[in-house]
Amino acid sequence: MSAPGPLSLNTATVRDQWSLAQAIEGCARHGIPGISPWRDKVAELGLAQSARHIRDAGLFVSGLCRGGMFPAADAAGRRAAIDDNLRAIDEAHALQANCLVVLGGGLPPGSKDLPGARNMFHDGLAAVLPAARAAGVTIALEPLHPMTCADRSVLSTLGQALDLCDEFGDGVGIALDVYHVWWDPQLEAQVARAGKRISAFHVCDWLVPTTDLVFDRGMPGDGVIDIPGIRAMAEAAGYNGPCELELLSHRWWKEDPEQVLTRAKTAHATAC
Amino acid sequence: MSAPGPLSLNTATVRDQWSLAQAIEGCARHGIPGISPWRDKVAELGLAQSARHIRDAGLFVSGLCRGGMFPAADAAGRRAAIDDNLRAIDEAHALQANCLVVLGGGLPPGSKDLPGARNMFHDGLAAVLPAARAAGVTIALEPLHPMTCADRSVLSTLGQALDLCDEFGDGVGIALDVYHVWWDPQLEAQVARAGKRISAFHVCDWLVPTTDLVFDRGMPGDGVIDIPGIRAMAEAAGYNGPCELELLSHRWWKEDPEQVLTRAKTAHATAC
Repeated sequence: MSAPGPLSLNTATVRDQWSLAQAIEGCARHGIPGISPWRDKVAELGLAQSARHIRDAGLFVSGLCRGGMFPAADAAGRRAAIDDNLRAIDEAHALQANCLVVLGGGLPPGSKDLPGARNMFHDGLAAVLPAARAAGVTIALEPLHPMTCADRSVLSTLGQALDLCDEFGDGVGIALDVYHVWWDPQLEAQVARAGKRISAFHVCDWLVPTTDLVFDRGMPGDGVIDIPGIRAMAEAAGYNGPCELELLSHRWWKEDPEQVLTRAKTAHATAC
Repeated sequence: MSAPGPLSLNTATVRDQWSLAQAIEGCARHGIPGISPWRDKVAELGLAQSARHIRDAGLFVSGLCRGGMFPAADAAGRRAAIDDNLRAIDEAHALQANCLVVLGGGLPPGSKDLPGARNMFHDGLAAVLPAARAAGVTIALEPLHPMTCADRSVLSTLGQALDLCDEFGDGVGIALDVYHVWWDPQLEAQVARAGKRISAFHVCDWLVPTTDLVFDRGMPGDGVIDIPGIRAMAEAAGYNGPCELELLSHRWWKEDPEQVLTRAKTAHATAC
C-alpha cells in the first residue's frame, strides 16, 4: 500500500499545551509540513500575523477549523452564525487554507426538532456559500459521529453530507474524519460516491473503552479503526491530499507536546 | 395523536434493585401490563418458574433480552454463541415472548475487521434462524447506537438491519429503540420500509449532556428525542404493539424502584 499523504497537525491535538505560534514552530522543528489551526488560536495571535508566521515556517494549511454551527433558537442567533461564517471564510482565504471545515451544530437549546435543525443547517450553508465561492474557499462539510447529534452536530453521516454536496454543487466538499464515520455500514459506498469532493482527511482512533463522548480519542494505532483501509477507500475515490491528525483527548492534552508530535509522526508512518 | 401501546417494563430498568420475581410483582402492583426480562434474571429464578410467575401475574412478555452477539475471535467462540442463541430461542418460546431481541455484538478482541464481524453476525443469524422459525419465535434485530459499534453492536443502523430482514425473510423483524435510531437522517424512510416487521418498540431518552456511552439513558421526557414523533412513524408503518421502557442508567439504578415505576407510568402517559 502507498504511504499516506503528508502529515498535518490539527492544533486541537495540542490545544491545552501550545499557542498557535508554538504549534507552528513545533511543526517546523519536527518536520511536519502541514497545520490546521482553530479559529480561537488564530484570533489570539491575530489573523495577519498567523498567516505570516505559517508562511514563513513553510507550512501548508490543510484546513481552518471551524465554521458551520448554523442551528439556533431564533432568527438573531441564526444571523449571528451566518455572520460568523462569513468572517471564517475571510480567515480561511487569508490563511490560504485548503478548506474551511464546517460542522453541523447541535439542536437549539430546548428543541427536539431534529429535522428543523437540519433545515437550519441547510439554510445557513446556502446563505454563506456565495461568499465562499467568491473567495475561492472550499466548504468541507464534516459529519460528526451520531453520538454528538444532540449538542454538536446534526450533520451525522457521509450520505447526508453528500446529499448537500449534490444539492449545492461547486465549492462544497467533505472533510472525512475516520473517527466519525468508521462505523457506517455505507462507508465504502459513500466514500466512493464522494469521489473528488473529499477535501480533507482526518485521523485519530476509537479507543475501547471510550470514556467520553468528545474528548477521549486515541492516537492512530491505539484503537480499533482500520485507518489504512479507510484511506485506501479515499484514495480509490481520488483523494491524494494530506493526512491531518486531529486528536481531541484530555489524556493527550496532559502530555509533553514534543512527545505528542514525536508519537504523531510515528503513528502517521505506521498506522495511517 | 393516539395513546401509546400498553406499557411494558424491561427488567434492565430496575436491574440493580430487583430480581425477576420482584419486577413481576412490581408490574402487577403498579398495573403495568407487560414485562421484558433479561436472560440472567430468568436464569436466577429458573425458566419454568419465570414463565409460571409471569403467567400467574397476568403479564404479557414484549420480548426476551437478549440473543445475538455472534462475532467471536475463533470458530469455537462463534459456535458457543450459536449454541447460546439456540437456548435463548427455547427460553423465548417457553416465556411466550413476542420476540427474542437480537444484538450485533462487538468486534472480536484485537480485531479491526468490521466487515468481517458483520459477516459473522450474518452467518450466526443464518445458523439459528431455522430453530427460531420452528419454535415460532420472532427474531427482532435491534440496531444499537453507532457509539457501541466497537464493543457491543456491529449492527448499527435500521437500514443495515432491514437489509438482513430482506435477505432472510420470514421470522426476522426489528426492535426499534428510539435511543439508538433517533439521530438517523434516514429514520423516517427506514421506519416506513420496516412496515409490519417492527416487532418491538423501545423507549428512553437522550440526555444532554450524556456522560456514559451505555449507562446514562434518560426517562422519556427528560431528553431531546421526539418520542411521539418516532412512535407516529412506527404506527404509520403498521405497528400497534407495546411501548417498552428500557432504561439503562446508573442514576436510575440508585432510585427506589417503586418510584421508578411510578415515574415510568407518568412518562409513558405524557412523553411517549
